[in-house]
Amino acid sequence: MSDIDTSKIIDGKAVAAKVEAEASAAAQKLKDNGIIPKLVTVLVGDNPASQMYVRMKHKACERVGIAAEDCLPPADISEAELLDLIHGLNEDDSVSSILVQLPLPAHINAQTIMNAISPMKDPDGFHPFNMGNLMINEEGLVPCTPKGIIRLMEEYNVEIKGKNAVVVGHSNIVGKPMAAMLLNRDATVSICHVFTKDLKLYTKEADILVVGTGVKHLIKADMVKDGAAIFDAGITTDATGTYGDVDFENVIQKASLITPVPGGVGPMTIAILMTHVVKCAEMIAQK
Amino acid sequence: MSDIDTSKIIDGKAVAAKVEAEASAAAQKLKDNGIIPKLVTVLVGDNPASQMYVRMKHKACERVGIAAEDCLPPADISEAELLDLIHGLNEDDSVSSILVQLPLPAHINAQTIMNAISPMKDPDGFHPFNMGNLMINEEGLVPCTPKGIIRLMEEYNVEIKGKNAVVVGHSNIVGKPMAAMLLNRDATVSICHVFTKDLKLYTKEADILVVGTGVKHLIKADMVKDGAAIFDAGITTDATGTYGDVDFENVIQKASLITPVPGGVGPMTIAILMTHVVKCAEMIAQK
Repeated sequence: MSDIDTSKIIDGKAVAAKVEAEASAAAQKLKDNGIIPKLVTVLVGDNPASQMYVRMKHKACERVGIAAEDCLPPADISEAELLDLIHGLNEDDSVSSILVQLPLPAHINAQTIMNAISPMKDPDGFHPFNMGNLMINEEGLVPCTPKGIIRLMEEYNVEIKGKNAVVVGHSNIVGKPMAAMLLNRDATVSICHVFTKDLKLYTKEADILVVGTGVKHLIKADMVKDGAAIFDAGITTDATGTYGDVDFENVIQKASLITPVPGGVGPMTIAILMTHVVKCAEMIAQK
Repeated sequence: MSDIDTSKIIDGKAVAAKVEAEASAAAQKLKDNGIIPKLVTVLVGDNPASQMYVRMKHKACERVGIAAEDCLPPADISEAELLDLIHGLNEDDSVSSILVQLPLPAHINAQTIMNAISPMKDPDGFHPFNMGNLMINEEGLVPCTPKGIIRLMEEYNVEIKGKNAVVVGHSNIVGKPMAAMLLNRDATVSICHVFTKDLKLYTKEADILVVGTGVKHLIKADMVKDGAAIFDAGITTDATGTYGDVDFENVIQKASLITPVPGGVGPMTIAILMTHVVKCAEMIAQK
């Protein structure tokens, strides 16, 4: 690793800490006015990975000074019962934000549940109303991972307007909202995915490359433009270690900026989530 | 024009007539069950172009067998009064669809008005909830022009999945929803616009090219890939005639399929609108 220029490495942990400090200050301001931002996490069943994610979110709330509450319905809760539960949380003015941890059991339609959360209490930004506002350049509550990547671009002065941006992966959570945010900032945006026939044709022209596929080391050095800014939202853990979607050690030689995995995009997601919980509380206060 | 292969020309009028016939049959089915699909058009003030567009929509309703009603508030109606008017139409079960003709006077925020229309009564598909559903591949009521283009692709057996699709123009009405629809059908999608530095770099790779910019003859033959399918949603009328965004006479030499202007994409927009009015009536009937 001695030939790596560490000045190219984006420090996601440091920016996340800065974002959390901002969220903390905004939360304090609300609390000074008697408003306590509160996140309710809904975890159906006992999936260990989901439990870990929820724990991480609660810890972040603690750091930032946001109240966090567990809601733990059993795995066999019916869709109708879960909807009732969500409706109750929507109507409870002490609840700023509702986060339903995915995945849900197979007998529950996740989209039906997402759509039931009040768009005003949706810190994940997954509600179609919030997604639609993102699409028409009225960004409010938006998905946290792409928003975190935009914040990294801002912190590292990555110019977006007029640049060739390529997003690899077209998930509803990362790829599509990422493309929308880059388009809102006037990049020329290409969205590639598993059905793309010649990925390199696109990635080679990218001034900005965002990858979120979960395919270990999908992006090699010969696929990347000299001087590109590269953001890696993928993470794969196997017996030999933890990897991103980008072949970091080789790609960094060509990049001007690059996020490591871990410590790049990852920490931003929860930090942005915290700002959204505060934003929800502010919106409720303004009602 | 003698060297033009007319078999490459997409007949938008014929497909639009087919779509209107389908809408008419579906409307008849509803009427047989005592449900009358009804479109209310809201035209604020007396902009002559807007009056013409509204008239065209009413004529289409007549052809299809849909009731159409004019709502003609004066140009000085306040935003609050217009909102009240929309709310009244939302609550009126005899009204299937509400279409607010744009542009609105400067003292009224168009987005506020769009957001006030019930997403269930939104045949234009502009409501953020409907846009968001489009984005997450739950297409319901979607913008009519891009939907019309998708229908042309279907009628002419244009394969979308895995193809390189390029959309030129990033408006909320054409470009962005077009990109979302192509992405939902697994094309690799690039969105270019006025800030794109090297448009040809993108258009030259396009198997499918959709253009909606309003810039006369923006797309020249040397910017187009051999065998591309080309859809032109632009229209410019000047002293010498009516033109699309594509230099039709030269580009057709390279294209496998191409829409003319007029008579290509244009007729599809209103035909799709008619299917949406019927769809709204069906949704209300199912409530």
